[in-house]
Amino acid sequence: MAVVPSTKVVAPLKDELDIVIPTIRNLDFLEMWRPFFEQYHLIIVQDGDPTKIIRVPDGFDYELYNRNDINRILGPKASCISFKDSACRCFGFMVSKKKYIFTIDDDCFVAKDPSGKEINALAQHIQNLLTPSTPFFFNTLYDPYREGADFVRGYPFSMREGAPTAISHGLWLNIPDYDAPTQLVKPRERNTRYVDAVLTIPKGTLFPMCGMNLGFDRELIGPAMYFGLMGDGQPIGRYDDMWAGWCAKVICDHLSLGVKTGLPYIWHSKASNPFVNLKKEYKGIYWQEEIIPFFQAVTLPKECTTVQKCYIVLSKLVKEKLGHVDPYFQKLGDAMVTWIDAWDELNPPAVPATEPVAKKDGPPPKAK
Amino acid sequence: MAVVPSTKVVAPLKDELDIVIPTIRNLDFLEMWRPFFEQYHLIIVQDGDPTKIIRVPDGFDYELYNRNDINRILGPKASCISFKDSACRCFGFMVSKKKYIFTIDDDCFVAKDPSGKEINALAQHIQNLLTPSTPFFFNTLYDPYREGADFVRGYPFSMREGAPTAISHGLWLNIPDYDAPTQLVKPRERNTRYVDAVLTIPKGTLFPMCGMNLGFDRELIGPAMYFGLMGDGQPIGRYDDMWAGWCAKVICDHLSLGVKTGLPYIWHSKASNPFVNLKKEYKGIYWQEEIIPFFQAVTLPKECTTVQKCYIVLSKLVKEKLGHVDPYFQKLGDAMVTWIDAWDELNPPAVPATEPVAKKDGPPPKAK
Repeated sequence: MAVVPSTKVVAPLKDELDIVIPTIRNLDFLEMWRPFFEQYHLIIVQDGDPTKIIRVPDGFDYELYNRNDINRILGPKASCISFKDSACRCFGFMVSKKKYIFTIDDDCFVAKDPSGKEINALAQHIQNLLTPSTPFFFNTLYDPYREGADFVRGYPFSMREGAPTAISHGLWLNIPDYDAPTQLVKPRERNTRYVDAVLTIPKGTLFPMCGMNLGFDRELIGPAMYFGLMGDGQPIGRYDDMWAGWCAKVICDHLSLGVKTGLPYIWHSKASNPFVNLKKEYKGIYWQEEIIPFFQAVTLPKECTTVQKCYIVLSKLVKEKLGHVDPYFQKLGDAMVTWIDAWDELNPPAVPATEPVAKKDGPPPKAK
Repeated sequence: MAVVPSTKVVAPLKDELDIVIPTIRNLDFLEMWRPFFEQYHLIIVQDGDPTKIIRVPDGFDYELYNRNDINRILGPKASCISFKDSACRCFGFMVSKKKYIFTIDDDCFVAKDPSGKEINALAQHIQNLLTPSTPFFFNTLYDPYREGADFVRGYPFSMREGAPTAISHGLWLNIPDYDAPTQLVKPRERNTRYVDAVLTIPKGTLFPMCGMNLGFDRELIGPAMYFGLMGDGQPIGRYDDMWAGWCAKVICDHLSLGVKTGLPYIWHSKASNPFVNLKKEYKGIYWQEEIIPFFQAVTLPKECTTVQKCYIVLSKLVKEKLGHVDPYFQKLGDAMVTWIDAWDELNPPAVPATEPVAKKDGPPPKAK
């Protein structure tokens, strides 16, 4: 694990992708990623005490935002960004100006494939994002766009173009992403199984999206990648990525966008404390029993043709249908709207080139 | 590939499972499967000329049915069983008295896993069938019931019991199961990728089910495993397993049963002739563009609480909604009803033990 490859790797999309890292500590973990990350731009979102200095290894190109920066940039809208929780990473998604995002936790290291070769996780995410998904019909030989694979007999030809891929969800060797109860019950379980596959999560199926090793197309799905209200002052934690995953999947399904999961693996080094996790999670564990049926039943109206429009409708439905679960969901519904306001402020929608300038379809750019 | 393991393997469920093999030739391929199959009962369905003698290697326990047997046993209902097509295998499903079926083609051999170990495909199918499926929510670490795996963070606890598994769909190394156009375009493509995973095909998602390497629970889904009208006298071939897969998946979804795909692999030795295949397939290739949207839209009424009831409703919908595609679908719809009649004749429904004997819920057993 400590060996760093000596050869420089090619860096696809290096001017079109930002790497977003939420952290509370020095970023020594980047040393191991140097051959794969150093040609990319990093957006570091510093969580917790803004007076603390975060050390970034030399040679990396980065911008760093602490809480004071977030408050300054977003003003009152900063309320939608969580504090003392890695959910703050979504601020990085918002300030990025690139088409693609890769986000990774600072306890994730380079994994090896079964041949012993170090895995360039970022390159695999890019490959996943640049090839279509197959959400409308299942291909039993997994990703049909991969070298040496194709659509199997019986796969309708009209569906072989697939759908644009919005999300690439990577997995973890060593410490699996378990909830606190499972961590407590199986403290020694390690994931040693390398499954050599990428697959599309079918339309209409929800999945638990983990933010540890995640790529997405900001232009296609960015505004749905809100990691909610977690951590400081909130009744819940560790559901930030889940929330984003449920919302994003429902919107991808509505807009006919694809979500892939599988490769690449990263090496997840250290299990978080299950007792602390239990405290953060326990409300989520019973709330999700109502949240998931809610998301499974959600249908968005035809008029919702942009991610923003979908997300605003979803925020209303959250308040209406989950408000009875806990007052938290009223607050969360409001924060979802604030998030979209802030997103549009920092990312003023361009007037679509294919439409006459007079007909403004999207919300007008707002003054900062 | 030619090495036969010398140790005897344990034979799980050996009195509860039949191996069904459709064939037109001597079954020398069984030699390679001997250590894995010889403790099981085989049902061989001889296709084509009934006067031809099929040689079965010594030591196997089998029953063999040729066309004359099928005609004798089913009488006029034999019209629903295809002739000169491997679709005839479903006759074996019908005459079996066991709870589980494994069906395999006679050009399929024992594959090896990446460590070089011969794969006991049947044992893996049994493991797939005896553990639940997870059709209602996607687990990113694949089969959560497998050794060393579990449900990931965010998987609702109320769904962790899963659903009973009705179907286990295995895959193929070497010659992939491609349609004729893909065979023609990629004549040299071989599947060399061993993906070490079993996964549930989510509820609401259709898949192309291949009959080459397939296990299922006859009690749960048997009557839906009708391989349709193919081959001699029919306008189509090579869609037998696809038809069964579409029907069975829709019924599994309705009855909350699970379908798994992935492991085990078999070694598929020889590509069939793409020109012959094209002739058999070409109608299916354009028909499926209407058939699949039909199956994607099918909803079965609540009253359909058994596979038989589901299948009869489906047969009516096929005639009603696909009849315009080709008169073939009228004939197929009728054959589906004949199939169920024949199934119930050979498998008289037991009076449920939990109900009073006077109240007969299922159709009464018919005299042969």
